[in-house]
Amino acid sequence: MLDVAVEEARAGLAEGGIPIGAALFASDGTLLGRGHNRRVQDGDPSMHAETAAFRAAGRQRDYRKTVMVTTLSPCWYCSGLVRQFGIGAVLVGEARTFCGGHDWLAEHGVDVTVLEDERCVGLMTDFIAARPELWFEDIGEVP
Amino acid sequence: MLDVAVEEARAGLAEGGIPIGAALFASDGTLLGRGHNRRVQDGDPSMHAETAAFRAAGRQRDYRKTVMVTTLSPCWYCSGLVRQFGIGAVLVGEARTFCGGHDWLAEHGVDVTVLEDERCVGLMTDFIAARPELWFEDIGEVP
Repeated sequence: MLDVAVEEARAGLAEGGIPIGAALFASDGTLLGRGHNRRVQDGDPSMHAETAAFRAAGRQRDYRKTVMVTTLSPCWYCSGLVRQFGIGAVLVGEARTFCGGHDWLAEHGVDVTVLEDERCVGLMTDFIAARPELWFEDIGEVP
Repeated sequence: MLDVAVEEARAGLAEGGIPIGAALFASDGTLLGRGHNRRVQDGDPSMHAETAAFRAAGRQRDYRKTVMVTTLSPCWYCSGLVRQFGIGAVLVGEARTFCGGHDWLAEHGVDVTVLEDERCVGLMTDFIAARPELWFEDIGEVP
């Protein structure tokens, strides 16, 4: 499932955007929605990868058995999304370059797995080195 | 400032949507963005009132002196937005019909004010009575 999120992250990078991708799956592995960060592409700060995937999945009545897969530890915004909608599981590509709210989600009963996938680490390490100002903007950090 | 959010909530209701409105202001009172819940109108579960107002404000570099005004206590998704982007203050129309993460935000240094405005209470009381299934869908509660 992480492969889909990595494809999304790479697509975002190819578009000149922030290389974070995500996908929402049903419990049987059916892909419900996929997306990537669209801050640069759409000038839209509300479209983080996880919110883009959630949006692409459309209106769902029950998220308890869904899995949110993301290339990077979800920030507080995206962690709040997971908690509010009761998404049952989160698969995190890596939490080395940024650590958001995945521990908080685990404390609140979400099944969280962190993979430390080298593809994901590499995408963000290179991006942060190349475009630090854009990265800090995306997580609301003021120099 | 709450009047703008109430106008947004009423506009959403008139469109057949969920009557929650929000607006993001700069510290000098300049309106940066305004919006309302768009689940019904756009089939978009990611557009809560606060995220819609945040989106409408476009890319901003520093949210520390901004004020998020919302007719209803922000859910975890929208509370996460406020925390991640360092929005400095939240003005809540009411927290009687739904209590989200505003206490958590206050614990993390956000200047939170709850007004218990009767217009806001009335909008949600009537809406929840009329369309409970739609309201529960919007906050991810499964009957």
